Order: sequence, then structure tokens, then C-alpha cells
Amino acid sequence: MGLKVVIVGGVAGGASAAARLRRINEDAEIILFEKGEYISFANCGLPYYIGEVIKEKDKLVVQTPEKMRERFNIDVRVNSEVIKIDAAKKVVEVHDKARNRTYSEGYDKLLLSPGAEPVKPPLPGIDLPGIFTLRNIPDTYRIKDFVDNTRPRRAVVVGAGFIGIEVAENLAERGVKVTVVELANHVIGPLDYDMAAIVHQHMKSKDVEFYLNDGVKEFSGIDNVIQVQLTSGRAIKTDMVVLGIGVRPETRLAAGAGLKLGARSGIAVDEHMRTSDPNIYAVGDAVEVRDFVSGEQALIPLAGPANKQGRIAADNMCGMEESFYGTQGTSILKVFDITVATTGSNEKALKRNGIDYEKSFTHSASHAGYYPGAIPMSIKLLFAKNDGKVLGAQIVGYEGVDKRIDVLATAIRAGMSVYDLEKLELAYAPPYSSAKDPVNIAGFTAANILKKDCAIFHWDEVASIDRTKSVLLDVRDAMEFKLGSIDGAINIPIDTIRSRLNEIPLDRDVYIFCQVGLRGYLAYRILAQKGYSRIYNLSGGYKTYQLAVQ
Amino acid sequence: MGLKVVIVGGVAGGASAAARLRRINEDAEIILFEKGEYISFANCGLPYYIGEVIKEKDKLVVQTPEKMRERFNIDVRVNSEVIKIDAAKKVVEVHDKARNRTYSEGYDKLLLSPGAEPVKPPLPGIDLPGIFTLRNIPDTYRIKDFVDNTRPRRAVVVGAGFIGIEVAENLAERGVKVTVVELANHVIGPLDYDMAAIVHQHMKSKDVEFYLNDGVKEFSGIDNVIQVQLTSGRAIKTDMVVLGIGVRPETRLAAGAGLKLGARSGIAVDEHMRTSDPNIYAVGDAVEVRDFVSGEQALIPLAGPANKQGRIAADNMCGMEESFYGTQGTSILKVFDITVATTGSNEKALKRNGIDYEKSFTHSASHAGYYPGAIPMSIKLLFAKNDGKVLGAQIVGYEGVDKRIDVLATAIRAGMSVYDLEKLELAYAPPYSSAKDPVNIAGFTAANILKKDCAIFHWDEVASIDRTKSVLLDVRDAMEFKLGSIDGAINIPIDTIRSRLNEIPLDRDVYIFCQVGLRGYLAYRILAQKGYSRIYNLSGGYKTYQLAVQ
Ligand SMILES: Cc1cc2nc3c(=O)[nH]c(=O)nc-3n(C[C@H](O)[C@H](O)[C@H](O)COP(=O)(O)OP(=O)(O)OC[C@H]3O[C@@H](n4cnc5c(N)ncnc54)[C@H](O)[C@@H]3O)c2cc1C
Ligand SMILES: Cc1cc2nc3c(=O)[nH]c(=O)nc-3n(C[C@H](O)[C@H](O)[C@H](O)COP(=O)(O)OP(=O)(O)OC[C@H]3O[C@@H](n4cnc5c(N)ncnc54)[C@H](O)[C@@H]3O)c2cc1C
Ligand SMILES: CC(C)(COP(=O)(O)OP(=O)(O)OC[C@H]1O[C@@H](n2cnc3c(N)ncnc32)[C@H](O)[C@@H]1OP(=O)(O)O)[C@@H](O)C(=O)NCCC(=O)NCCS
Ligand SMILES: CC(C)(COP(=O)(O)OP(=O)(O)OC[C@H]1O[C@@H](n2cnc3c(N)ncnc32)[C@H](O)[C@@H]1OP(=O)(O)O)[C@@H](O)C(=O)NCCC(=O)NCCS
Repeated sequence: MGLKVVIVGGVAGGASAAARLRRINEDAEIILFEKGEYISFANCGLPYYIGEVIKEKDKLVVQTPEKMRERFNIDVRVNSEVIKIDAAKKVVEVHDKARNRTYSEGYDKLLLSPGAEPVKPPLPGIDLPGIFTLRNIPDTYRIKDFVDNTRPRRAVVVGAGFIGIEVAENLAERGVKVTVVELANHVIGPLDYDMAAIVHQHMKSKDVEFYLNDGVKEFSGIDNVIQVQLTSGRAIKTDMVVLGIGVRPETRLAAGAGLKLGARSGIAVDEHMRTSDPNIYAVGDAVEVRDFVSGEQALIPLAGPANKQGRIAADNMCGMEESFYGTQGTSILKVFDITVATTGSNEKALKRNGIDYEKSFTHSASHAGYYPGAIPMSIKLLFAKNDGKVLGAQIVGYEGVDKRIDVLATAIRAGMSVYDLEKLELAYAPPYSSAKDPVNIAGFTAANILKKDCAIFHWDEVASIDRTKSVLLDVRDAMEFKLGSIDGAINIPIDTIRSRLNEIPLDRDVYIFCQVGLRGYLAYRILAQKGYSRIYNLSGGYKTYQLAVQ
Repeated sequence: MGLKVVIVGGVAGGASAAARLRRINEDAEIILFEKGEYISFANCGLPYYIGEVIKEKDKLVVQTPEKMRERFNIDVRVNSEVIKIDAAKKVVEVHDKARNRTYSEGYDKLLLSPGAEPVKPPLPGIDLPGIFTLRNIPDTYRIKDFVDNTRPRRAVVVGAGFIGIEVAENLAERGVKVTVVELANHVIGPLDYDMAAIVHQHMKSKDVEFYLNDGVKEFSGIDNVIQVQLTSGRAIKTDMVVLGIGVRPETRLAAGAGLKLGARSGIAVDEHMRTSDPNIYAVGDAVEVRDFVSGEQALIPLAGPANKQGRIAADNMCGMEESFYGTQGTSILKVFDITVATTGSNEKALKRNGIDYEKSFTHSASHAGYYPGAIPMSIKLLFAKNDGKVLGAQIVGYEGVDKRIDVLATAIRAGMSVYDLEKLELAYAPPYSSAKDPVNIAGFTAANILKKDCAIFHWDEVASIDRTKSVLLDVRDAMEFKLGSIDGAINIPIDTIRSRLNEIPLDRDVYIFCQVGLRGYLAYRILAQKGYSRIYNLSGGYKTYQLAVQ
């Protein structure tokens, strides 16, 4: 007989591994256990089914057990939960829910891809009807049926991570008034506060309400109304609640089998996706991996890594050596009309890891300004202070955000620096970009900072500027200045600055700013060459400042 | 006095250099000569003004001479043609057209950015009214006025490069019936034939007519009708003609000054954009540069490189050492509803340079298939046979083409291989991509070829298959087979192949194919492990075959 492989979990990591295993080993016996009813479903599409963006049920399922059998000759067993692993005997114990019986199945190699489960804190009232989590197809139907049948007017989404925000959007699209409650001071953990602020503003414009820096203390229910009691003392009445507080790796099986868990409580694996038991591999949301940028251990519950890890594990199980080099957490999210994307480390991670970094903010048009439809995006670039290596990026905007994050993700993978970004030769025609792509501009701006061609200050330093020793210099047009500026700033429009140098004191710190940072940089360059040495340009300009302090 | 810089040409390379020069040297005297009336205009937007996609005239001008003076303190002199350089004396001679006088201007450093002029072969009738070229704003007005005033029903575009195709599209959008005449066997030179075939089909569907492999012999005119006589003997009657045969570097000034020209007849420069005269720099369409992939000398008349070179030349003129590392010719084009993009070398270039390459074709959805609006794109990837280094890519499709070409352009810049593409961690959420991005899939497919996990054959080898010694095996569904297949193929759908192996002769070459290459690959993997050794899978499947041979 050939190799016998048992797989636990039939979705992203598990199904991908099964398909790949079959391609490299036609004779292996491959058994795939899935405790739920469905395999190979589109987890990432679930919120959009609730929002009726995806209209057909069968679109949610990429492969059925039957098709998986036909095409890949996989022995798929749904409604079958693996409840125990005997690693010494190389046997798993399986509970067949349909027949309510338990049996054993031996393996040569075992792959765990059980995923992660939604966090459900033991709060009073957490199991009330009308309170949901979203992980799989039955969860999705439950939420959708509830919306279809009871027509809720109001919903509270607890937790503003990717899934929470997607649910919030899709409920709002169904006409439900959504309130988001989040413990942190901003939505979407991988972003920093200043970039998340743009998302807050956009969601508010879509009539979504926020309670940030606040958590849920308890739920109570009377007559189909749920009262959500917040730690701040506030109480919200609502018709339904969706919990999107995060996910926790499914490690019970692994822990029970004595497999090593890691620092972040995920299953520990080496670069071949092998656990502490040489015959057991694990992939996906259940494992922890090395962060490609910081080197620290990380839990990255994303489908791209899960699929790729499944493929790599399959290769290694068959003796083909393949490695997973860690993840950089590249992720993206549609939030109503805007797109939010990140790759690599954010400031929180860089600080945690003691990495000496600098950052720049730029706002560039998605394509040539003279071609219809150009619309600005905000880019935050994080890079090493010593050599300019790109460490992370966050982008929020409308069109073309996905493109720039993917270019930056590729640059990070290649170990590129901001000097390399300056030179990238990206495709330009007016409908797609500018002769200097937003990524080039971000590179120029960052390189100028590092080369000390432009000293900068950041939006969060404005409050602590000692106004008695400094001037705040707004170089925008008189009209822009009138419409709103930083308190106490003086206005000398960039195009008049050469003739008005006498108005700018040489013996003070000069904090220059414009709308996005470009004209401020031009002013900086003039002053720097006219004897001013204590000058600084506001990175990202008034736009970044205003969005972040609002 | 500070540095005195004279710049010839006030658009992409020249204006960018002027602005950068001012930023790094506030005290330099900077004189910018432009022989035309406008500086800093949007060359790339001109076709869209003709098509009325860009509606306002002033959108075509990014900076006016006045604004350039105000903001950057540049001495801009329009209608001023530099007619001679005396490199020994460091003096240029200038013809001031407005005052019809000629004068001299000295320089410390001279920058040439004169661009390239449209090729206008000395054919009989070439100067007839109604025959146009398109390079600058006056050309644009001439064409637009002609269309507005004479309402032509028919137009002939000679030459199917980027500009020719853009003009064809924009005239068609104005309701003009367009015929394209092209000497080569396909449109858009940087593409290979197989990818250009998709463009042919799309343009035909938009009622554009083609004469490929054909050239113009002469033009003649009677009563506002132009007769275009082709070398094939055919004659076309038309109301107007636009020549888009290509551009030729403006080297007269440089040559006159004794500057070295290169192998491709562009101005020769080193990596600092310095010509053979240490005080003269040159950038943009007029220079030739090193091809980043092949290392050969190349003329790349594109705005991105021109802008970047202008910036680099400015730095070097001021003593800051900066290098231009060559161009990979990344370019993109909107053709009605589709997007066409390329980066790096095409097959023609690889063959010319004797580089041992392989290629793969894949067709992947622009984003997750279950999310509305997903639409396939065709990717041709060219890579080194020995180490898998990515050498070039061509993509044609609808949504998301620009993103994938930019990722691949970045990968090429980083020296990545197809094995690196497999691992790229790109942003995935259903509206933007799939868990395995089209770039990952292209990487998998190419790596499988190189690792000999799948031997392939190409669409252009089908005709020469010896049918007496081989079987052509179509593994698509019976219905797909019925709708059209390669002549003489047998049909065994992939999901039945395991039970029908007896129908596939072991002693023949088996040429497998499916629609896009995926199911053919699955069939290949089964057969390879069942004792078949002379098997090959059609790269890109019937889709690539059918598009290319049509
Ligand atoms: C609503 C939602 C939206 C998402 N959106 C995105 C997105 O846009 N982009 C993105 O990259 N990622 C997204 N994700 C995350 C992505 O779906 C996961 O990272 C990915 O599916 C993880 O793959 P996995 O194989 O580890 O786990 P899963 O795909 O969750 O599969 C694990 C399976 O194992 C089964 N299982 C568990 N234990 C056992 C057992 N003991 N016996 C048998 N079966 C068992 C479970 O029932 C489950 O079906 C989203 C997730 C959700 C829930
Ligand atoms: C219709 C059209 C569409 C295009 N679309 C794209 C696109 O989508 N993407 C892309 O990347 N590129 C595109 N390009 C190419 C791009 O515009 C050029 O590569 C770029 O402008 C080259 O910059 P340059 O500075 O070398 O030359 P130019 O921008 O052409 O500027 C040269 C200037 O020098 C002036 N000049 C020449 N000789 C003298 C002299 N002796 N004295 C004074 N002045 C002189 C000329 O009048 C001209 O204005 C397009 C070009 C055209 C014409
Ligand atoms: C459906 C599923 C079983 C498919 O797994 P898969 O067969 O590995 O994936 P694909 O269908 O994309 O095929 C990829 C394979 O085809 C090959 N391929 C793709 N296009 C090809 C082409 N045109 N020519 C040749 N080969 C091609 C790839 O090389 C790859 O094979 P390899 O891994 O052996 O190199 C699995 O991805 C799954 O269950 N997905 C749904 C669950 C999920 O991912 N959820 C999270 C996201 S919502
Ligand atoms: C208009 C033109 C003169 C502008 O030149 P430019 O000033 O170099 O270009 P930009 O306006 O994009 O500004 C880029 C500069 O601002 C800086 N910058 C941009 N955004 C910034 C921000 N948010 N904060 C700080 N600096 C910023 C960049 O670093 C760069 O400066 P550097 O080169 O000194 O590093 C020139 O590009 C031009 O003439 N274009 C039209 C012609 C043309 O290109 N045609 C072909 C394409 S259609």
C-alpha cells in the first residue's frame, strides 16, 4: 500500500493540501475529515452573502465532497469530528455525527488544519438569541435568516476587526443601523490609529455609529430587544448582535496529543509545517508562524497563507522539501466605498520589537489627475532608519489601493528599501497611474527624510510644540488657510515665500505645513538653503493631521 | 554666481529636471528653452482629449510657464528653439520665434530633453491635408478640430503601437469607423503574437478593421477623400489618416555638437545620464538606455523613465551622485474595455539575445469567482530555463491587469524567480483577488514546468504534431468538446480519466489539453504516475490555442 494521509479540516488549508497531495501522489490514500457539513467553502465570502452581494447559496461552496471524490479521489467524510489523536500509535479517533458512532483511523502522516474559532467571552447573556458569531455556512444562514425574517432595525457589532467591519458593512447595506463597539481606540488592528481614523470618518459618513475604547460588560434581553451594557456605563438597545472580537486557534486536538504549542498559543510548526511530532503537520489559522518582517511569532488567520501552507505541507509529507518563509500579514478590506490595506509591520509592532523606524505619509492620486476619476489615496510607509528597508505599509483610499499594497508587499518580500521604491518602473498610462506612481512618490518622500533633505514632524507632535519658541507656517493658499488651519499658524503661500523670508524668524523653530506635504517640502527646501536650520515639514500635511486629530 | 543650468525641452524630462534642480539648488540660474508654445503638458493625455474623455483644454497642461516661474523660479522661455550647441565654449544658440531673433546663452551644465519625433516616411502624398501625426498640443487641436468640423466617417491609423491604438480607440469613440494598417503581424510591438491576438479580437468586436502584414505605399487625395494605397495592392478610401508608426529620438542638436550617439541612434549616456561631454546631460525619449533584463541598448520612449531620468540628471548636475539602472519597458494601454500590459523582455527580445527561456500561459480570474464581477485575464510569463528568473510578462484582460503587471515589474526589478512568485503574499479579500493570486498561480505553473512536474507543449506546436504517432487528448467536458476542439482530438473528461486509462495508448505521445491548462495538468499528473512518459500538457489550454490560431 501507498502512503496513508489523514487530514483534519476540509476548508482552506485542508482541502488545498488534499488536492495537492493527490497531484503529487496518485496512489496515496487520502482521508479528509470535516466536522461540519460543508468542505471547501468560501469563508471570505460569507459576509457578502448576508449583505446579498453574493446572491446564490451554491456560490459559497467551491468544492463539494462528491466533486472532491470524483476529481481528486479523496475520501471525504463530513460531519466527522476528529476527537483524539494517538500520536504514538498513529491513530485518530473520529466521531461520526450522522451515525453517532466513534471509530479509529490509522495514518502514516496526519495534517491538522482545524482553523480558529470566534472568541466568545463568558459574559452574562452571551448565549441570548439574536447574538451571533460568523465562521461557517450554518452561521451565515443563521444570521441571514434572522435578518430576512425579523427585519432588525438596529445591530451592534462587537469588535472592529476585518470580519466585524465586513459584517457591519453588509448589515448596513441591508438597511440595518449598525453600531460598532471596539475596545481599542481604533478599528482594524493591523492599522495604526492615524490611518484607521480615515476609516472611522468614512464609516460615520455611512451612518455607522462607533463606541471606541469601550467593551461589553453584559447582554440582557427583554421582548426581542437586546440591551448591550458597556464597561463605560453606556447601554445600547439593539435587535441583534454580531461578535467579531477575533479568533482563537483550534488547538485542543493538538494539545491533547501532546504537540508543542508556541508562544502565541498556536500549534508550533517548523518551516516545513511540521509539528513537534515528525508525522504530524499543521497549517492555517491553528498554527503560529514567523513574522517575515519582525521575526517574532505571529498568529495570522488569513486564507492566502493557509492555502500556501497546505500546499507546502503536502509536499513535505510526500518527501519533497518545501519551506514556508513566514508571513507578512498582507491584508485588505473593502469598507463601503473605500479600500483599506496593510502589509508588514505597523508602528505598534515595530515599537514592540525595538526596531528603529521612521514613517512618511503621502497622499497621491490613484491615476493621472487630468484623466477622469482620479482620486487620492493615503499611504503610510514605515521604514528602517538606518538603511531605509521597507518595514510596512498602510493604504486607505478608493481606486488602486490593492495595486499599491501588492507592489509594496512584493518589495518587502524582496527586502527592498525606500531607495528601491524610487526606482521601481511601474506601468503608466493615464487611466492607471501617473508617470511617478504613488509608490515612487512614497519612495522619494521617505528617501528625502532619510537623506536629511527634509526634516519632518508628525501630526501627533503638534500638540507639544512650544509655541513660545516656534512658528507654525502654513504655506497653502490664503483660501485654504481661511477654511481651516492649525491654531496659531501664520500663512505665507508657497509661491510668495521667496519674497517674504523677512517674515519668518531665523531664530525660531519653524514648523512648516501644507495640505499633503508637497508644498511644505518645497518651502523647506527654500528655507534650508536660506540659512534656516531649525525647520520641519509636517509629514502628510494638514490632511493627515486633520484626519487623525478629529 | 551660482550654477547656471540650461535645459532644452520643457516637458516630461526637462520640466521634471528643472523642478528637481530648484529643490536641490535654490541659487542656481535655471533657464528652460521650449521650442513649442507649451511646457509641462500631458503628452499621454492627448489622445483622450481627441476622444473627449478629457473635456477641458486646460487639463492638458500640468504647469504653465508662469506657474513654473512663480513656484520654482525657473526662467522659462517658450517658442525658443535651441538650434546649436557649442560644447567647447559652453554656449547654446537660441532662436526666439516670437521676435524672430537668434541669441546665445552660456551654461555651466546643459540638459537635453528634446524628446522624439513621430516618424513620417517620405511617401508620396504624406503631406496631404487630413494626414496627421500626434505629439503635442497643437497636433491634438489640429486632429480634434478636424474631427469636430468635418465629421469624418472613416479614418485610417497607420501603425499599431501604443499611440496608434489609443488614437484608433478615441476616434472610434467619436463614432469614426477606424481601419488600422500595421506592417508587423500583430499590434503593439512589446507583445508577442499570441497575446496581441486577444487585442485583435477585442478591437474587431469594437468594429475596428485591421490590415496586418501590410504597409502604406502612397497617399493620394481627391475631393477630401484620401486614398491609402497599401503595399499588398489593396486600396482604402478614407476621410483622414493618423500616422502612429513610431518615434525617432531627436538627436540633431546632440549630433551637431559632436556628442556620441549609441547603437540604436539615441544619444549615448552613462548611468548618471551624462553624455560624452562631461557638462552635457541628456534624458528621456532622446537617449538610449540599458535594457534592465537583456542588458542590450534600448530606446524606451515612456514618461516614467523620462521623469525619473530628469530627476537623476538634476542630482548629478549638482554633484549628488545618482544612477539610472536601466529600464524594463513596463508599459500599459487601455484598449476599449480591456487592458494590455507588459514588462521585461518578450520572446522576440529573448531570442535575439540568445537567452534560454521557457514560457507559461495562465488564465486566472481577476478576483474570487464567487464575488460578483470576476473576469479572467490571460498572463504570459517568460522565465529563464536554468534558474527560473522572471524575464518578462504580458497580461491582457479587464480588471486587475495593471496590478499584476506592477507586481511582476517589481519582481523583475528584485531579480525574483518563478519560485519567489509562488510565495508572494499578496492582499486577498473577495473583491480584489483570490487566496492564490493570479501571480501566485503563474508562479506555480511555471515552477511545475521547470521542476519537470509537468511537460508542456505550446499552441504553435500543434500543427506540427505527427498525428500517426500521437493522440490529442481533450480532458474537458463532453459539452465543451462538442462546442469546438482541436481537430482529431479524443475526449476523456478529467473526472472519468482514472477509469478510462485503457483508452489512452501507452506507446504514443499523448498531447493533453483542457480549456486553460489546469485540468490538463491534473490529467498529466495522473498519467505521469500511471506509467505514461511521453505526455505533454498544452500551456494555456484550448483558450490560448484558439485565440492565437484564429
Ligand atoms: C467571515 C470570514 C471572512 C474572512 N475573510 C477573509 C478575507 O477576506 N481574506 C483572508 O485572507 N481571510 C479571510 N478569512 C480567514 C480565512 O477564511 C481563514 O484564514 C482560512 O479559512 C483558514 O484556513 P484553515 O484551513 O486554517 O481553517 P478553516 O478554513 O476555518 O477550516 C477549518 C475546518 O476544520 C474543521 N475542523 C476543526 N476541528 C475539526 C476536527 N476536530 N475534526 C474535523 N474537522 C474539524 C472546521 O469545521 C473547519 O471547517 C475570513 C474568515 C471568515 C470566517
Ligand atoms: C500621444 C502620446 C501618448 C503617450 N502616452 C504615454 C503613456 O500612456 N505612457 C507613457 O509612459 N508614455 C506615453 N507617451 C510618451 C511620453 O509622453 C514620452 O516618453 C515623454 O514625454 C518623453 O519625455 P521627454 O522629455 O523626453 O520628451 P517630451 O516630453 O516630448 O518633451 C520634449 C520637448 O522638447 C522640445 N524640444 C525639442 N527640441 C527642442 C529644441 N531644440 N529646443 C527647444 N525645445 C525643444 C519639444 O518641443 C518637446 O516639447 C505618450 C506620448 C504621446 C505623444
Ligand atoms: C478548491 C480547492 C480544493 C482547490 O485547491 P487546488 O486544486 O490546490 O487549487 P486550484 O484550483 O487553484 O489549482 C491550483 C493548481 O492548479 C495549477 N494550475 C492552475 N492554473 C493552471 C494552468 N492554467 N495551467 C496549469 N496548471 C494550473 C496550479 O499550479 C496548482 O497546482 P499545484 O499546486 O500542483 O502547483 C481549495 O483551494 C479550497 O478548498 N478552496 C476553498 C476554501 C478556501 O480557500 N477558503 C478561503 C478563501 S475564501
Ligand atoms: C509638473 C512637473 C514639472 C512636476 O515635477 P516635480 O515637481 O518633480 O513632480 P511632483 O509635482 O510630482 O513632485 C514630486 C516631488 O515632490 C515630493 N513630494 C510629493 N509628495 C510629497 C509629500 N506628500 N510630502 C513631501 N514631499 C512630497 C517628491 O519627493 C518629489 O520631490 P523630489 O524629486 O525632490 O524628491 C513635471 O512632472 C511635468 O512637467 N510633468 C508633466 C509632463 C509629463 O510628465 N508628461 C508625461 C506624462 S503625461
